[in-house]
Amino acid sequence: MKNTFGNSLSVTLWGESHGESIGAVLDGLAPGIKVDLDYIAEKLTLRRPSGSISTARQETDPINIESGVFNGYTTGTPLTIRIPNGDTRSKDYSATRFLARPSHADYTAHEKYHGFEDFRGGGHFSGRITAGIVAAGAIVISALEQNGIYIGTHVKKCAGISDGDFTDNIKEEIALLSKKPFAVLSDSVAEKMETAIIEAKENGDSVGGILETAVVGMPIGVGEPWFDSLESSLSHAMFSIPAIKGIEFGAGFGLADMRGSESNDPFRMKDGKITTATNNSGGINGGISNGMPIIFRTVIRPTPTLSRAQETVDMSKMENAVLESRGRHDPCIVHRARIVQDCMTAITLYDAIATRYGTDWAVKGL
Amino acid sequence: MKNTFGNSLSVTLWGESHGESIGAVLDGLAPGIKVDLDYIAEKLTLRRPSGSISTARQETDPINIESGVFNGYTTGTPLTIRIPNGDTRSKDYSATRFLARPSHADYTAHEKYHGFEDFRGGGHFSGRITAGIVAAGAIVISALEQNGIYIGTHVKKCAGISDGDFTDNIKEEIALLSKKPFAVLSDSVAEKMETAIIEAKENGDSVGGILETAVVGMPIGVGEPWFDSLESSLSHAMFSIPAIKGIEFGAGFGLADMRGSESNDPFRMKDGKITTATNNSGGINGGISNGMPIIFRTVIRPTPTLSRAQETVDMSKMENAVLESRGRHDPCIVHRARIVQDCMTAITLYDAIATRYGTDWAVKGL
Amino acid sequence: MKNTFGNSLSVTLWGESHGESIGAVLDGLAPGIKVDLDYIAEKLTLRRPSGSISTARQETDPINIESGVFNGYTTGTPLTIRIPNGDTRSKDYSATRFLARPSHADYTAHEKYHGFEDFRGGGHFSGRITAGIVAAGAIVISALEQNGIYIGTHVKKCAGISDGDFTDNIKEEIALLSKKPFAVLSDSVAEKMETAIIEAKENGDSVGGILETAVVGMPIGVGEPWFDSLESSLSHAMFSIPAIKGIEFGAGFGLADMRGSESNDPFRMKDGKITTATNNSGGINGGISNGMPIIFRTVIRPTPTLSRAQETVDMSKMENAVLESRGRHDPCIVHRARIVQDCMTAITLYDAIATRYGTDWAVKGL
Amino acid sequence: MKNTFGNSLSVTLWGESHGESIGAVLDGLAPGIKVDLDYIAEKLTLRRPSGSISTARQETDPINIESGVFNGYTTGTPLTIRIPNGDTRSKDYSATRFLARPSHADYTAHEKYHGFEDFRGGGHFSGRITAGIVAAGAIVISALEQNGIYIGTHVKKCAGISDGDFTDNIKEEIALLSKKPFAVLSDSVAEKMETAIIEAKENGDSVGGILETAVVGMPIGVGEPWFDSLESSLSHAMFSIPAIKGIEFGAGFGLADMRGSESNDPFRMKDGKITTATNNSGGINGGISNGMPIIFRTVIRPTPTLSRAQETVDMSKMENAVLESRGRHDPCIVHRARIVQDCMTAITLYDAIATRYGTDWAVKGL
Repeated sequence: MKNTFGNSLSVTLWGESHGESIGAVLDGLAPGIKVDLDYIAEKLTLRRPSGSISTARQETDPINIESGVFNGYTTGTPLTIRIPNGDTRSKDYSATRFLARPSHADYTAHEKYHGFEDFRGGGHFSGRITAGIVAAGAIVISALEQNGIYIGTHVKKCAGISDGDFTDNIKEEIALLSKKPFAVLSDSVAEKMETAIIEAKENGDSVGGILETAVVGMPIGVGEPWFDSLESSLSHAMFSIPAIKGIEFGAGFGLADMRGSESNDPFRMKDGKITTATNNSGGINGGISNGMPIIFRTVIRPTPTLSRAQETVDMSKMENAVLESRGRHDPCIVHRARIVQDCMTAITLYDAIATRYGTDWAVKGL
Repeated sequence: MKNTFGNSLSVTLWGESHGESIGAVLDGLAPGIKVDLDYIAEKLTLRRPSGSISTARQETDPINIESGVFNGYTTGTPLTIRIPNGDTRSKDYSATRFLARPSHADYTAHEKYHGFEDFRGGGHFSGRITAGIVAAGAIVISALEQNGIYIGTHVKKCAGISDGDFTDNIKEEIALLSKKPFAVLSDSVAEKMETAIIEAKENGDSVGGILETAVVGMPIGVGEPWFDSLESSLSHAMFSIPAIKGIEFGAGFGLADMRGSESNDPFRMKDGKITTATNNSGGINGGISNGMPIIFRTVIRPTPTLSRAQETVDMSKMENAVLESRGRHDPCIVHRARIVQDCMTAITLYDAIATRYGTDWAVKGL
Repeated sequence: MKNTFGNSLSVTLWGESHGESIGAVLDGLAPGIKVDLDYIAEKLTLRRPSGSISTARQETDPINIESGVFNGYTTGTPLTIRIPNGDTRSKDYSATRFLARPSHADYTAHEKYHGFEDFRGGGHFSGRITAGIVAAGAIVISALEQNGIYIGTHVKKCAGISDGDFTDNIKEEIALLSKKPFAVLSDSVAEKMETAIIEAKENGDSVGGILETAVVGMPIGVGEPWFDSLESSLSHAMFSIPAIKGIEFGAGFGLADMRGSESNDPFRMKDGKITTATNNSGGINGGISNGMPIIFRTVIRPTPTLSRAQETVDMSKMENAVLESRGRHDPCIVHRARIVQDCMTAITLYDAIATRYGTDWAVKGL
Repeated sequence: MKNTFGNSLSVTLWGESHGESIGAVLDGLAPGIKVDLDYIAEKLTLRRPSGSISTARQETDPINIESGVFNGYTTGTPLTIRIPNGDTRSKDYSATRFLARPSHADYTAHEKYHGFEDFRGGGHFSGRITAGIVAAGAIVISALEQNGIYIGTHVKKCAGISDGDFTDNIKEEIALLSKKPFAVLSDSVAEKMETAIIEAKENGDSVGGILETAVVGMPIGVGEPWFDSLESSLSHAMFSIPAIKGIEFGAGFGLADMRGSESNDPFRMKDGKITTATNNSGGINGGISNGMPIIFRTVIRPTPTLSRAQETVDMSKMENAVLESRGRHDPCIVHRARIVQDCMTAITLYDAIATRYGTDWAVKGL
């Protein structure tokens, strides 16, 4: 379904970087969820470029709720959020129309859409579209929190510098992360990462990193065998976020070097409940939540757009060319992407829970 | 859709490890694809346990084509393959009914299905169900090959031992891999891996590894922006394979330590066609195929079932317990999973191409 | 999804009239529903040809449950029923291979599948495939009945002869209909209808009719606005039954000649509950169940296969031709189709309720 | 998918009668389709209330293309149309908040959404939402016409008065209908129908009718067996239009009184092509297009909102009540609904063709 994702709860995205607006239709929310525009705005701020580590484009993200909210609560019918575009300098792009940016979607979009694509600023493939995910996802996050389910993401690695790990107090760590513009667990590494980003920027270069997400409070027994496993759904959702090129759950790729006797998570009774002594499975067994925190990491590639010269081809002349630079851009999007990852996670898990417990679960309770 | 995956081409799975049969319904194949039972049997052999590095369960996998093939060719209507179960020693399991195997789906299935699940041999969560994927996928692989699209997977890592990388002759390497029971590029490592597997087995333990898949001949422009990106579809499909806990495309998690100037793949003209000088993107830009080989890796966790004692809980008594052992099992499934990964890849890519080029593409050509 | 229908509960069909088997995969049933093979067999008997008013083909419909049932209860994982074909006289069809039966799918299937279709006995388009719907639907009907939801269909019209209407005792009438091989409310008309069918048969001709379905006990508030209205879902399901060419809800086409003041159903309190004084809406307002009986009628075309000569074309020679006769066939399928209509209704409504109340509703209660 | 419909081409609707805006996201259009705002405006005019036979609400329907069009052509990415609401007199509705209008969705929406629904003017259930269908559908209609596929709907019956039938010159009749504000084939009946509508209005009453749609130029072989038959898809789409309570294809309910020898459509060669001598099947055999005109009729119930007093209940007090009147409304919507029917037909058929021929068919040709 191209630009629509989800079953019981679905999100439909639209927009181009330099078009009239970008937006999202969220369909399937329970009626009666409180909608707080300030809360949405706060989440959008976490995604917005700011300071010297981001693009100079100023995005103010005015939120227009077009439908689905009445007297401050969700109606249960499609909730549409529209964010008009502003500060679009389209002329930046026309000169380099046919010079495909390496590792960006310019070439593949050109092939797929036969030249009719809106190429300005990456068009429909721009990270700008994720503002719609965040606006929609903010409402879903608040609905999950009202049900004791908390989601948080930190910059596990950026420009080669590593953050610490989630501890046993994940819920509190999530609360702290939700307020930080640059989300790390160990505050001391933030400055190092920012310095490295600025250094890359000054070299006309960019950096990538790893985002780690934790979910606590997930009910047990959610997810489906085979094709709608939680890993399938979450990875499907995450790879929709531009620049993500990998995902791993629990111990992830580290499992390749472990023995079963190390990697297995022994079940243990704790306070009358079944838990696991370790969480190498990342809270998911057989595709289904086991009540432990859901843990996964994604890798974000270095931003493909650079301000230094790059080798490429001219798609109109079919010959080699050099791309000097193109538009404003971010030397790093890892810290901005984390709220997008939170939001896609929220939408995906809300949907999975609704499939199991019905459309009204978020208001009625489980 | 729980046990159904795909749009233009869909696969529906059924079965339990110790039930009557397992099987798959493949719906949406072009009419006129030749169906070769020997070819399907050959692929099933690659999945089947054999020798000292696998479970002692003898699976003969008789193939019953129930529908969708007429005079040796696909009809275009649902193609159903049924594989009756045999050599099932169900009594092995009854004693340990409530002792959830660590990191297996016993506990989550018990929560989700309220005790009505067929618990014998992992029931519907058994790797045995992947025989249906392989039987169906074999037909899809042959349809892709008739269109110049080749898929191959090798054991990139197993028990901590690494295989080499794909070179520039991927098509030939795929041809070689397709014949190998233990698929590695450097034949010398196979023996080392097998030795390590046997050693783990003798210790009542198990090992995991990494599978790397390459696809050559993929048409350019296939895949969708946002929610049906090739990465989204492929990861959704791969995480349906039991034991996979991570996936990465191209340079994958290595991108976290690279600069954009390193990780970007410069476009270059070659023989009049647009190619990239490197392939850190794994053949996918913006979710859409760019004509370069599609490359991805998955991590396979060590088999959770062990023959040594493990700590667990008794789900019926809600108390800690020890699981001595349970049924026959594999000390390693990495080498068996590779053909499953080939087949899920084939089904996913056939579907994506059919969405773009229509239901008859595999016979009519692009 | 071609041969798969439904969201929370889905059914996937396979098979050809003269292939190995026909069958259905039912995915999404709550775990813990009792499965009674005799009950399924009883429903299949209602669909089976019998006596002088049906085809001479003997269908014994042996039921093979391949998966999804354990110790007599549904497991919650895919429930697959396979019915091997028998008494297939394929040679009957080869002579008339290219003579498309008027108003049957021979020609359109030939165009769509380019000649690779299994043409014997209508292949995948045969009414025989509905045995899979009935086998699967019987389980769903029993699950609905355990929740106080009853479905019944009668032959409202056949060969121009009309049956009476449902009264206020629909639940009892449904109970009576469920036992009748030829389901009419007024027993006296059954004989007239059967006589008319035999008369048509003796003339080498066929007849059609109207089926009327009633559902009582439907919970209020089920169905979705716009694209998943109950009317949308039910009609989608009904038009999957071969030979149905029309459907109307409540007063249906009669509404064209009414005024709003006549057709509107006034709300009235009754026993402390909101009801309507009339039911011209057929139990559905705005696509959502209103608690009144759901009532709809479908029209079944006269069986297209006739034993008299018919004008047609020879598809291989592209010239006019005469089709003398082809295979065994039914002079009327209205009475056989009614149980198929019951079953498709059951599957559709179960799915709509599960979307609202979650996957376990049928066992857990609303 | 509640408010999303379609596979290769999907439409997502949003909005409430008195909310900020209503709109539609059309996803999956081929890139390169010319978008003519005047053409869309013209189609919207056909839906808009006007004169004494409609509601007094003035809807100006300003069209805002938010995304998916670049330099006058579709981009291939989501095309979003937003229509801000205007002239909304919400105070009209507050007094009758809990007096459910008979046969309208007030009661079922109240049950489903637990009182959180936007009740003003019917909210999300208002016919106003169909403006989004028309705006989106207009683009699809033009794309179909560029491929020789023409769709037209006439008021077959209104207030008990009948129009004539389509003849052999359907293409020309469609061209004429497309320009008529009150679409009938026999111009003389329009005045009679309008007079009857006004008479009903003066009595505080409303009328319904029948719409008949014809499609010419449909390629042969489109549609799927079983669950995605053209009848299934078209009926699913049509029942999404408020007030439609029945649909029939070809001879429809008339088939109940015919013999097979009358109702069968003999195949005949004509100009080297296979055609049928009659078209009782309405252009569809076995769910698949046979190249003859697709013909179907829907019944539109009399508008449920009346200006005369009606019996109802007060949902807040759970007691009988009288509803005096409520808001502005239409004494008849049959003539307005016809363009909605055209548009839903266009979207449905475009999707079915794209499934068979791929995403680019409308520009690339079949």
